[in-house]
Amino acid sequence: MSKGGKSDQEEGEENMAAWLVGLNTLKIQPFKLPPLGPHDVRVGMKAVGICGSDVHFLKALRLADYVVKEPMVIGHECAGIIEETGSEVKNLVPGDRVALEPGIGCWRCDLCKEGRYNICPDMKFFGLPPFHGSLARQLYRVHRGEHLDWLKYDLQVSRVVQVPIVHPAYLCFKLPDNVSLEEGALCEPLSVAVHACRRGNISPETNVLVMGAGPIGLVTLLAARAFGAPRIVTVDVDGNRLSVAKELGADGVVEVSTNMQDIPKEVETICNVMGAKVDVSFDCAGLSKTMSTALSVTRAGGKVCLVGLGHNEMTVPLTPAAAREVDVIGVFRYKNTWPLCIELLRSGKMDVKPLITHRFGFSQKEIEEAFETSAGDGNAIKVMFNL
Amino acid sequence: MSKGGKSDQEEGEENMAAWLVGLNTLKIQPFKLPPLGPHDVRVGMKAVGICGSDVHFLKALRLADYVVKEPMVIGHECAGIIEETGSEVKNLVPGDRVALEPGIGCWRCDLCKEGRYNICPDMKFFGLPPFHGSLARQLYRVHRGEHLDWLKYDLQVSRVVQVPIVHPAYLCFKLPDNVSLEEGALCEPLSVAVHACRRGNISPETNVLVMGAGPIGLVTLLAARAFGAPRIVTVDVDGNRLSVAKELGADGVVEVSTNMQDIPKEVETICNVMGAKVDVSFDCAGLSKTMSTALSVTRAGGKVCLVGLGHNEMTVPLTPAAAREVDVIGVFRYKNTWPLCIELLRSGKMDVKPLITHRFGFSQKEIEEAFETSAGDGNAIKVMFNL
Amino acid sequence: MSKGGKSDQEEGEENMAAWLVGLNTLKIQPFKLPPLGPHDVRVGMKAVGICGSDVHFLKALRLADYVVKEPMVIGHECAGIIEETGSEVKNLVPGDRVALEPGIGCWRCDLCKEGRYNICPDMKFFGLPPFHGSLARQLYRVHRGEHLDWLKYDLQVSRVVQVPIVHPAYLCFKLPDNVSLEEGALCEPLSVAVHACRRGNISPETNVLVMGAGPIGLVTLLAARAFGAPRIVTVDVDGNRLSVAKELGADGVVEVSTNMQDIPKEVETICNVMGAKVDVSFDCAGLSKTMSTALSVTRAGGKVCLVGLGHNEMTVPLTPAAAREVDVIGVFRYKNTWPLCIELLRSGKMDVKPLITHRFGFSQKEIEEAFETSAGDGNAIKVMFNL
Amino acid sequence: MSKGGKSDQEEGEENMAAWLVGLNTLKIQPFKLPPLGPHDVRVGMKAVGICGSDVHFLKALRLADYVVKEPMVIGHECAGIIEETGSEVKNLVPGDRVALEPGIGCWRCDLCKEGRYNICPDMKFFGLPPFHGSLARQLYRVHRGEHLDWLKYDLQVSRVVQVPIVHPAYLCFKLPDNVSLEEGALCEPLSVAVHACRRGNISPETNVLVMGAGPIGLVTLLAARAFGAPRIVTVDVDGNRLSVAKELGADGVVEVSTNMQDIPKEVETICNVMGAKVDVSFDCAGLSKTMSTALSVTRAGGKVCLVGLGHNEMTVPLTPAAAREVDVIGVFRYKNTWPLCIELLRSGKMDVKPLITHRFGFSQKEIEEAFETSAGDGNAIKVMFNL
Repeated sequence: MSKGGKSDQEEGEENMAAWLVGLNTLKIQPFKLPPLGPHDVRVGMKAVGICGSDVHFLKALRLADYVVKEPMVIGHECAGIIEETGSEVKNLVPGDRVALEPGIGCWRCDLCKEGRYNICPDMKFFGLPPFHGSLARQLYRVHRGEHLDWLKYDLQVSRVVQVPIVHPAYLCFKLPDNVSLEEGALCEPLSVAVHACRRGNISPETNVLVMGAGPIGLVTLLAARAFGAPRIVTVDVDGNRLSVAKELGADGVVEVSTNMQDIPKEVETICNVMGAKVDVSFDCAGLSKTMSTALSVTRAGGKVCLVGLGHNEMTVPLTPAAAREVDVIGVFRYKNTWPLCIELLRSGKMDVKPLITHRFGFSQKEIEEAFETSAGDGNAIKVMFNL
Repeated sequence: MSKGGKSDQEEGEENMAAWLVGLNTLKIQPFKLPPLGPHDVRVGMKAVGICGSDVHFLKALRLADYVVKEPMVIGHECAGIIEETGSEVKNLVPGDRVALEPGIGCWRCDLCKEGRYNICPDMKFFGLPPFHGSLARQLYRVHRGEHLDWLKYDLQVSRVVQVPIVHPAYLCFKLPDNVSLEEGALCEPLSVAVHACRRGNISPETNVLVMGAGPIGLVTLLAARAFGAPRIVTVDVDGNRLSVAKELGADGVVEVSTNMQDIPKEVETICNVMGAKVDVSFDCAGLSKTMSTALSVTRAGGKVCLVGLGHNEMTVPLTPAAAREVDVIGVFRYKNTWPLCIELLRSGKMDVKPLITHRFGFSQKEIEEAFETSAGDGNAIKVMFNL
Repeated sequence: MSKGGKSDQEEGEENMAAWLVGLNTLKIQPFKLPPLGPHDVRVGMKAVGICGSDVHFLKALRLADYVVKEPMVIGHECAGIIEETGSEVKNLVPGDRVALEPGIGCWRCDLCKEGRYNICPDMKFFGLPPFHGSLARQLYRVHRGEHLDWLKYDLQVSRVVQVPIVHPAYLCFKLPDNVSLEEGALCEPLSVAVHACRRGNISPETNVLVMGAGPIGLVTLLAARAFGAPRIVTVDVDGNRLSVAKELGADGVVEVSTNMQDIPKEVETICNVMGAKVDVSFDCAGLSKTMSTALSVTRAGGKVCLVGLGHNEMTVPLTPAAAREVDVIGVFRYKNTWPLCIELLRSGKMDVKPLITHRFGFSQKEIEEAFETSAGDGNAIKVMFNL
Repeated sequence: MSKGGKSDQEEGEENMAAWLVGLNTLKIQPFKLPPLGPHDVRVGMKAVGICGSDVHFLKALRLADYVVKEPMVIGHECAGIIEETGSEVKNLVPGDRVALEPGIGCWRCDLCKEGRYNICPDMKFFGLPPFHGSLARQLYRVHRGEHLDWLKYDLQVSRVVQVPIVHPAYLCFKLPDNVSLEEGALCEPLSVAVHACRRGNISPETNVLVMGAGPIGLVTLLAARAFGAPRIVTVDVDGNRLSVAKELGADGVVEVSTNMQDIPKEVETICNVMGAKVDVSFDCAGLSKTMSTALSVTRAGGKVCLVGLGHNEMTVPLTPAAAREVDVIGVFRYKNTWPLCIELLRSGKMDVKPLITHRFGFSQKEIEEAFETSAGDGNAIKVMFNL
């Protein structure tokens, strides 16, 4: 028996979601919720951010090996309000404001059992085919128990599709009063940065270089500061972005070219601006040039954390870096990061509100405008839906 | 007051060493020993192996950023017999058979103080300019106390040159009776492998891939086995080398091409031959192709240890590997490895004797032949001098 | 739809299990299986070992904070044959011989998510109240689907009771042909030792001291050897047990008293027998004296792993050990150990067969005799049931 | 040729130091400096703090196994001004204000080579017999080159005595303009706290309990905050000390008794005041009661760092803690901490100035008063000499 459920007469009501139905085409269409399991909660979405990967799926219907073969609800940076809880849920009640961790590990493979569920090969992740995302709004009550196999749009991969806004309670994290739902949604990109800082072992004795001042580069700057990094230098090709980095607290910024030949000169500039050894570099762009720069400038025994997913194949001076025991650390998504993100926001150690540059409502016209804004060359950092 | 020193009348006697005096030119010429410090020992060299880097210096007078600007004694894989000990030396006496660790950290920089002396920027290393090596034979007694500044052949770098066979006692490790001086000399290449296994965290639950079946690839195979690796597969382009790997205990071998296009097919073959996940790969070649293969075949959450120093710049699929959190671990030389190497040889957990394929004495003709043999395309694995 | 299930006419058949029904009282009585979930398997038990904790429950009806309040099936060291698999089980088929990991983590708490499921506060563990154990034999087919709440004997703790021999597939590990079902059952105590060796970071450069030569001390000796420990010394008060340790490969043994005053003298003896520094000690007894000895004899910077659960409160010289940065590492059960245990048995790196000193069948008389044998002062190491 | 040296006519001048000459007896007497080695500097002492161990030596002429057998200069928390530098010193010049790390490792033993020089068995440490300390004032120039063997007061241990204020340059750390010499001297106790935080792996996700609000407890509180600890609770028997902890930023304080029976109740209070799990506890008292409390209150999988050196032998519930894999981490002194301490002071992340409650000059009367103040039951936290 679930708690917070409404009466039977509500059956037949509907939810609406932003479906990716074709190249550059998003449509608001109805969708139906799956049944609520004993450890699940039903969440009414309130704030959903647009990620670069969402834009990528819209523009290309694919990302790396993930191909959109059937209509899919988009979105994965999200927060909302608990509307119903499963019979075994102890720590949440209807009305709680929560941020959602969007990926569900299998908890049966070696990686899950070892605590590295972020690289579980069977993860079900919001808005990553064949799983639906979270840019959805509950308009009406769903007829629970109805057969849901129309949601399984990709029979080939034979996975059970989850509609995200019924979600395991253990992946929904209650927000304190002084943390907004928008900030809750930003816990998702922030989690990437927090996981990167953990992988890079950032502490009060780690001088940090951040390659790239896009959304991930900026949250990495904020997270490295929260982990105590005494000096942080941000590098980008775009002066405007670097101004934002400076406002967010970078100790120094370096504007660079896209020309590989400039690396030696730029390495020297970075060293001067840092005024100390670079202990850990985060490459939040993931290009041959950014990685080459990072490998060259990081001190012997330091680390380069590869966060960005730019070039698939890179031409980089890996051997001289290895001969100084500079390690290249892979960083993929996050694990167990929401509690820390929420604590950093609650305590004021980190302020992500300046990252939200644009806000939109949930209508056909607005979702189109929002994605255009996010994809555009303008000054958008983070575009947020309020549902 | 040193112990084991001979009487004053021996002053004026001489030592001889193999000097690298020009491109492809080695000459046996006299050299003089520096004074013996209170914590030093004087070692009569007995076994010295030829390393690929020695051959490289002979053929090019340089290796990476190290340039031979003045005549230099060559050699760094060595073992010998203690002839004299400094006044404060407690753990060694004349007559002890010892293997020598050839690099002396500064013990003042951050890296030395943190226990990573192998990447100390001020290391003095046998046979790496401007420091003399160890391919030397003591014929006569040196006139101690004589001014030695003729040994400082590179004033630009302003480092004090050490003649190696006066060496700090703490870098000389006593050999048990059942470990030969030749095996003692092989502790040097073996140390590279042991350090690589430590950096890769090899244990009885790590399946290992070794890219390359040259001397370093082969000792890495032996070391990984000694660290308990349950399955080890070796990959090379040379079938003869793979036969040696098989004889030394590889569970499987895969012969590959030098063609980048073959990587997907070869990755599949490696997986089949391994019959299990590849947890850690050692790239003992350090080429774009070997590294690309290693990055592709290693399991999510695994490690690729870059040991070989082949290509300076590599074109590799680093991003897909990072997205599976495959880390690239730099491996440079070794630290604190001699006691373990000696224990592995003593206990029989590792047998390096089959690696010695050729032996030479210490004459002008023999050193020339020995280096030709080592550099040749024949079946030489390890060439050893007996002095 | 499960695979391997038998036809409906078998409904109504029964299983029998060894129930702990009162102080010193075990009775073979029927029990009913719960329904098979999609990721579960049904296992016919074939080999079950007796653990000291089983004996403890029999003699005291409690262990630490765990109290037997209702009749409970006993046993947790077990292996068997798959009889039926749930609809989603991919890696097992009926007929497979498997070893069972007996504890099921919740996969929702912080510890499970971080990969430390062994200390999950909501673990369901075979034969630990209120969960049934595995000393059971399937005589007949169960009527599946029947209401099972009579199995929930402890309503206060409000946990769902699991009958173990329906078990999650991911905790059932297939045995190779050359590993027997009895060896499979011994993977449970072996797992304690393997987890201890991992926590102690045992490698070919770790000299090991094992305090105690009971079953756990002996498997720790075997595991430390498999992890490469070059020298292992075992200490006990019982000369017979030490003879077994010697036969199993201890490099040295030391017979000690139970008198605290003898510690300094015994520390000296242990050092002499070891002939080297003690890098890691395993206290498999967990008494004030064994822990005091271990803390005193372990080298600066070493570790003492506390495995045994002897004295609750101990009087120990913790401060002098801390001043040498000797860490005390807690070791509780195991996690992700079965694959490694099975590999060590398969490859012959470890032989646990000599540990089985007594075997019994599954009848009322035999289970009574078996527990008496296990509890007795005789030479029993491991007592095994064949079902 | 040293830099900064004065002319020969200064020979014959003298220094004065505070000599511990007998029980409760300190005398200002002359001492002579040893020769300046090429990597050494001569430092004029300016600020020296009194440590509890100094008081202990004064009151008992011994501490643990260290016995004062001959007159010894006392003091080890110190900062001063460079007066002369050895010929090879590159990073310091006369006039530089420096904080001194007071212990010199041997750099030849296994522990030094592995980067754990803090537990080097041959460390030479200021004011720890048989080595002189740093409470000294340079009045006149020393006659360099004079035979110094009168300084070797303990021939039995046959160590060369170092007069501390000639000290290796690599252990002298330049202070930025905004860090005072007194703060420089406080880097020594602060280093204990920083090392403890590193050993405990304190980060923005670690809730911290500090047992004890004496000087070390208070700097541990400050250091844990600088490492990002979100919640810190301090426990003591003394309400006044707890007030100081509160002023220095403790999120909560708990006043406890010295009665073992109160532990369960106090554990409950600590949990309530923390309002979260205790991830890491620092026992800065080192008593049976403080350690028992810490072991009981720390969460499964957490750590208890033993910093204080109170009781030698403790009676503690080690087994239940081990069964939750709570590790006990030994913490001894520090290594490589000065740069971080100075950075934390420079950046204002830590303010240690409130800890200095009393200041004294360097005269016979003042040193006696200063030690009385430090040893007294009053409100002294840190007593500082200005020389």
